[in-house]
Amino acid sequence: MTMSYLLQELRVMVLKSDLEKVSIAIMGVGNVGRNFLSLLSRNQKGIRRKTGKEIVVSFASDSNGIYSVRSGMSTETLLKAKEEGKLREAGKKVEMEDVLGESPDIIVDMTPATPDGLSGMGMYVDAFKHGIDVVTANKSPLAMHWSEVMNSARINGRKIRYEATVAGGTPLFNLIDYSLMPVEIVRVRGIVSMTVNFVLDRMLHNLDFEQSIRMAQREGIAETNFHDDTLGIDSARKTVIISNSIFGSNISLNDIEFDGVENLSDHLDEMKRSGDRYRIVSDVYRKGSEILASSKLQSMEPLDPLVSLGTTSLCYLLETTDGSKYFVGNIRDGPLETASAVLNDVMLISRERA
Amino acid sequence: MTMSYLLQELRVMVLKSDLEKVSIAIMGVGNVGRNFLSLLSRNQKGIRRKTGKEIVVSFASDSNGIYSVRSGMSTETLLKAKEEGKLREAGKKVEMEDVLGESPDIIVDMTPATPDGLSGMGMYVDAFKHGIDVVTANKSPLAMHWSEVMNSARINGRKIRYEATVAGGTPLFNLIDYSLMPVEIVRVRGIVSMTVNFVLDRMLHNLDFEQSIRMAQREGIAETNFHDDTLGIDSARKTVIISNSIFGSNISLNDIEFDGVENLSDHLDEMKRSGDRYRIVSDVYRKGSEILASSKLQSMEPLDPLVSLGTTSLCYLLETTDGSKYFVGNIRDGPLETASAVLNDVMLISRERA
Repeated sequence: MTMSYLLQELRVMVLKSDLEKVSIAIMGVGNVGRNFLSLLSRNQKGIRRKTGKEIVVSFASDSNGIYSVRSGMSTETLLKAKEEGKLREAGKKVEMEDVLGESPDIIVDMTPATPDGLSGMGMYVDAFKHGIDVVTANKSPLAMHWSEVMNSARINGRKIRYEATVAGGTPLFNLIDYSLMPVEIVRVRGIVSMTVNFVLDRMLHNLDFEQSIRMAQREGIAETNFHDDTLGIDSARKTVIISNSIFGSNISLNDIEFDGVENLSDHLDEMKRSGDRYRIVSDVYRKGSEILASSKLQSMEPLDPLVSLGTTSLCYLLETTDGSKYFVGNIRDGPLETASAVLNDVMLISRERA
Repeated sequence: MTMSYLLQELRVMVLKSDLEKVSIAIMGVGNVGRNFLSLLSRNQKGIRRKTGKEIVVSFASDSNGIYSVRSGMSTETLLKAKEEGKLREAGKKVEMEDVLGESPDIIVDMTPATPDGLSGMGMYVDAFKHGIDVVTANKSPLAMHWSEVMNSARINGRKIRYEATVAGGTPLFNLIDYSLMPVEIVRVRGIVSMTVNFVLDRMLHNLDFEQSIRMAQREGIAETNFHDDTLGIDSARKTVIISNSIFGSNISLNDIEFDGVENLSDHLDEMKRSGDRYRIVSDVYRKGSEILASSKLQSMEPLDPLVSLGTTSLCYLLETTDGSKYFVGNIRDGPLETASAVLNDVMLISRERA
């Protein structure tokens, strides 16, 4: 052991002890959650440099329960436990009230969407009351209870970020909040859900619905329970969040018109004959004092940027009051990109947390 | 005058007095500068809400000199003075040392690029020493003296942001710093200069060089002095900044290969016959431990996203170590979009300034 090695080790220890820790509770470690843990463990150095904080997982949950992660357990070990189906080995099983009582800095919600979004909304409101910030990839609470969630955050002086709820890992809300602050947006048009558009595209290429969905599942695009996607509900939820977040509306899933691809029947033949490309497009725009929001089946112009990046992309076009048009896309969106968006939100909040 | 009116006025006064002011010195009020002043005056409310600060112009300069803006003069009045060619009416004429002596919070550099970038570099270093942060749209100091500028900022604990130096108003550096923190970028390919690509496209459509440049000038794309653009220097400077900022290299304009469009001669006929689309593409990537950077004439694949948004767009593709590909473009870039990127940088620094 050389002197320079010892000095280096000492430097690392001093650096570590200096670092303020940000503790997070990860609710719902599934496919996106595994990618999140992997990114977290591979990026410790970059996270320290960019946020000045060390992010520590203090709770992790999956469908079997919530576990209090043993102090000192590395993210790698936690990830390995999850991959072997033994998240329970992370530590003691606890209840949600134990999590709230210990007040981690951030609750990260990666649980699946529920029809009414009530349990998520309840969790966020409880978190805010306990001084906890929230990062979420779960659309339901925001698509069903926008104003309750946002009012509770405001009253309690807490933050919520939700980049991963819309268009997977494609930056949208963070782009607006940090890169396009001076612009006023008048329209957002986007392809924000992959499964429904992938299946639609396959059906227009002569697969039937069942074949298309099986292909999407083989490619890792569609989930086992795909009906939220193929009925257009997932895309509609995202449209609601775009409308409320960017245009200041206060609507919920029940307020907008949306299409899916499960019941196209006769219309499908007509669409095929046309030779056009079709997509489920989220479209939100200001018209006078009104905000119009929909998630409908549309025939696309051949040169529309929204079809320029292929069928595994997610993308959107922002139009401003001054006529500027910004286009952003992610060419092959998947769980890794979504997890990256979640981690970016956690880093933004960590950096800004006093 | 009603009671409610008085109360409202009182509320506004209290709000105003509570706001911390951020003072800026705008160096080089030209076309982009006018758009910046216009955005600043139209956005006062949004700026206050998003940054918690009030941005006040304390100095403004153009080719006639630097003027100390009279206390209380509104941004509208300043803009009007500039538009009437009377920026001198803003206030007393001063020297650069007076600006430094009074130490505004931020110097905003919108002066034109110079061949050696020395004066800009000197200004930034002086600014940092006086506790002043810098926002710049001027490429030269960063393309010629990257490490001097960055070291000086670091040593003096100051900030420099430079979103508008590359790809006009298309978010790039801010996207990476605030929306893509967890990713590691291995390649950036982009169309980051409009004039050179617009002229090239016109020449491939059978205009000669002079006709093409005149058309670009009529459309407000090319400047009077266009040679930096058409010789490929502007695009090369941007490529250098991408390489240094994103890949941690320390190169200058003299270190990279670049093409322009002034001397295509025989090659042009060949290009026309091919029927292909050509662009000057900035390409920077990591290969082992090396960083390769160039700004060269390339034949484009028909489905390359870089040609999907048309000839008045600026855009780029980011590839990460994990294989993700993010595409970002601005469909019709111009001075307004560039000014918006400058103001966004000013807002980011203002928000984070204690």
